[in-house]
Amino acid sequence: MSEKLNQLKEILGEVADLRNAGAVLGWDQQTYMPQGGSDARGHQLGTLGKLAQIKFTSDEVGQLLEDLKTEFAGVDLADDDAALIRVTARDYEKAKRVPPEFVVESAIVTTKAFDAWMEARQKSDFSIFRPHLEKVVELTKRYVSFFPPAEHPYDTLLDDFEPGMKTADVKVIFENLRPKQVKLLQQIAAAKQVKDDFLYGKYNEKKMDAFSVGIATQFGYDWTKGRQDRAPHPFCTTFSVNDVRITTRFEKDNPTAMLFSTMHETGHALYEMGSKQEFDRTPLMGGASLAVHESQSRMWENLVGRSFAFWEHFYPQFKKLFPAQLDGVGLKAFYKAINKVEPSFIRVNADEATYNMHIMLRLELEIGMVEGSIEVKDLPEIWNAKMNDYLGITPANDAQGVLQDMHWSGGAIGYFSTYALGNIVSAQLWEKINKDLPHLDDEIRKGKFDSLLGWLRTNLHVHGRKFDPQDLVQKITGSKIDSAAYVRYLTKKYSEVYGL
Amino acid sequence: MSEKLNQLKEILGEVADLRNAGAVLGWDQQTYMPQGGSDARGHQLGTLGKLAQIKFTSDEVGQLLEDLKTEFAGVDLADDDAALIRVTARDYEKAKRVPPEFVVESAIVTTKAFDAWMEARQKSDFSIFRPHLEKVVELTKRYVSFFPPAEHPYDTLLDDFEPGMKTADVKVIFENLRPKQVKLLQQIAAAKQVKDDFLYGKYNEKKMDAFSVGIATQFGYDWTKGRQDRAPHPFCTTFSVNDVRITTRFEKDNPTAMLFSTMHETGHALYEMGSKQEFDRTPLMGGASLAVHESQSRMWENLVGRSFAFWEHFYPQFKKLFPAQLDGVGLKAFYKAINKVEPSFIRVNADEATYNMHIMLRLELEIGMVEGSIEVKDLPEIWNAKMNDYLGITPANDAQGVLQDMHWSGGAIGYFSTYALGNIVSAQLWEKINKDLPHLDDEIRKGKFDSLLGWLRTNLHVHGRKFDPQDLVQKITGSKIDSAAYVRYLTKKYSEVYGL
Repeated sequence: MSEKLNQLKEILGEVADLRNAGAVLGWDQQTYMPQGGSDARGHQLGTLGKLAQIKFTSDEVGQLLEDLKTEFAGVDLADDDAALIRVTARDYEKAKRVPPEFVVESAIVTTKAFDAWMEARQKSDFSIFRPHLEKVVELTKRYVSFFPPAEHPYDTLLDDFEPGMKTADVKVIFENLRPKQVKLLQQIAAAKQVKDDFLYGKYNEKKMDAFSVGIATQFGYDWTKGRQDRAPHPFCTTFSVNDVRITTRFEKDNPTAMLFSTMHETGHALYEMGSKQEFDRTPLMGGASLAVHESQSRMWENLVGRSFAFWEHFYPQFKKLFPAQLDGVGLKAFYKAINKVEPSFIRVNADEATYNMHIMLRLELEIGMVEGSIEVKDLPEIWNAKMNDYLGITPANDAQGVLQDMHWSGGAIGYFSTYALGNIVSAQLWEKINKDLPHLDDEIRKGKFDSLLGWLRTNLHVHGRKFDPQDLVQKITGSKIDSAAYVRYLTKKYSEVYGL
Repeated sequence: MSEKLNQLKEILGEVADLRNAGAVLGWDQQTYMPQGGSDARGHQLGTLGKLAQIKFTSDEVGQLLEDLKTEFAGVDLADDDAALIRVTARDYEKAKRVPPEFVVESAIVTTKAFDAWMEARQKSDFSIFRPHLEKVVELTKRYVSFFPPAEHPYDTLLDDFEPGMKTADVKVIFENLRPKQVKLLQQIAAAKQVKDDFLYGKYNEKKMDAFSVGIATQFGYDWTKGRQDRAPHPFCTTFSVNDVRITTRFEKDNPTAMLFSTMHETGHALYEMGSKQEFDRTPLMGGASLAVHESQSRMWENLVGRSFAFWEHFYPQFKKLFPAQLDGVGLKAFYKAINKVEPSFIRVNADEATYNMHIMLRLELEIGMVEGSIEVKDLPEIWNAKMNDYLGITPANDAQGVLQDMHWSGGAIGYFSTYALGNIVSAQLWEKINKDLPHLDDEIRKGKFDSLLGWLRTNLHVHGRKFDPQDLVQKITGSKIDSAAYVRYLTKKYSEVYGL
């Protein structure tokens, strides 16, 4: 290996160590940290972020990348080292634009904003969060200003989560999808409604947790390389390809949410755990983009976890755990219930047919905030009005509305559309997988997921961040990100569930 | 405030952030980290340690300290800023001698050594730990070689834990104490033995945990600034004056150990939590030395937690929790049982009369390893022989012997004597406290600890690392570290318990 490549990898390893250490601190902050630790944690995260940034954007890294780009000019794009140089150079050019002081300021602001959001959500009082969100939006605009003007200021933000994707591309995909999804929703509304009251009884938390953990294990989650803890908002976080953790929560008034949320986070974790070992401590570790990441979580949660085949195998076990709650509920009735379509307030618990509407709402608000056409103070009102427009329901309070997601408190503006794109990609991959694995449905019916995980490992997970999301989706499925497969999937599924 | 002092504090704040972040990673490593995370954790701790070291030993810090020493030349030693400069300068001169690569290597070696120790202890197989400990000893010798030759090579190590203390000083203190402690042990051995079998029945872990947590709360542990988790070896760790955590464990064959261990770690935590808020993120945060720290943990565990007054208040509650286990056991019998003197294998569970013998054994082994007169491969044999010499018992296996403590796996050689010194200091402080607070015994008898904690806060905790341990003990008690008060305390206590 080239001496310069070695030098670069050495520095990138230390940058990764700082970022992974920051991830541990972030995990602790959301799982175990006592309230008093908050201020100091802000300083710690700020310092780690700043030092990672300084180290990564050093002239030494710049020079090494320049020299290595020349050295690797003719090398195949799929070569790991060539990919490392390409991906690192892109990250470098971006990071170089952001001053280290800004990184520190961001960490401090968002640490406080996260605490304020927690309190605001708990008290359902937007006014507690508002001044913090205003600072976050101000920071976001300042962040955009560090970059050359794009077609749309939101492009700069989106590109951090979905490399190469433009706001206009997303709008086209969404505008194409939206009428079809609205039509489907109308057909469902006109059909005979599904009964699901038995899902909202009193379920024992420990049993639900044990069942969820059992499913994660069946999916292939390796507990020697991860663990599950409680957090106010479930997430997956990575400290190394061999230490990928998930979190969950139990909601008394929505007890099965814990199960599907664990499947979801397991999907993310399997992707991270499947990265090439050699990518650990390099910028190639992780997923191609948030949309591709979300395609994995949504695949395990929905395409697998809400499929009829899955429950053919697992429903007898589940019913044995909760005989009173599911008394008289057959497999088909249960399957229909967990796939019930109904406009609802909380995105993470939304069904597959309404989910993307939640995303479209958030995308519009984010674009508005970044453009300056929407002010933070007006968010609760606009949120509620749009909920009414899109889903015909109005949140009773801010906890049910604008305060439900943690993303903005962490400074993650530009992120939401990737959730809907993830749904779309999951269906594209699913069509291809089922072509390659014609017996997959039978295997799932037996509670077996090895060949599915094997396919994902070989075709997707192993690549880490090597390829741009659009190229990767094209390479695997033969098409760029396109909603046709997702519409086919939704239509087929809901035709069965609702007899359309 | 001087501009230069500001600059220094800014840099020291970042150094503290890196070290505190490392402490979070260390805490996670010992509480929650899955096995797979170990290698990456070694890299992360290595990088954080190295960067803290580089930042702290920069020429900029050296120059600022030089300039500030001149600026503060005439200032009172007790002035916070003057103390900051003095303590930082001492730390700087030491740290400057240790190459950053050594810090990284240490972190990697000790991370692996810790894992190996865990496995070795679990399997009671020293051979698993041996090659790792050999590396640790080699590192320790290399560390000593960075410093100017001292009277004894062990001095260099001891000074890191007990600033200003020499190996010869410790030997004098121990040699003075030892015959008196041996004599006391002989008197006890000749007396009527105490019954304590009821302490080793089946106690419910959750109830013991709840009672322990309740005691920590009564002592004054602030749960908004800390938490308790499980770990293989109980410890206290600090991420900020407002985030000080403790850990505990439940041992089925020694169920009350959890209670006394929680009192012990609470003692450490109260010291850390009592530092001046302004010392957070500076080198003045923490305790004067390990001995002074241990004086706090041992005071709450033993002088308070194993006192008759304490149990006059708490025994009725405790007995209510465990009526079957303590059936027919009166307060006096219980008090005697928890103070039973009996040679035993495990240091952390040793009674107050034998505890220091465990320490003297370890000190001799450490000095031997550092001098080169004892080889790692011979440790189990020498350990067992010395146990037989000092306490007349021989461990049945290495888990009960040389593998019981985690310290060496973490590279902490030079540490053990501070445990015995802590016992000694605790008694010196206790005599002074009881002079200043003549009604303390009555308060403890009512389950009240406010004036005790208040006294400790004002006279000790608030000072953080401002003063050298010998000076601090002298300042508070009027005498340097001296075992007379401890011998008086032990003699009085065991005369009551054993009717000597």
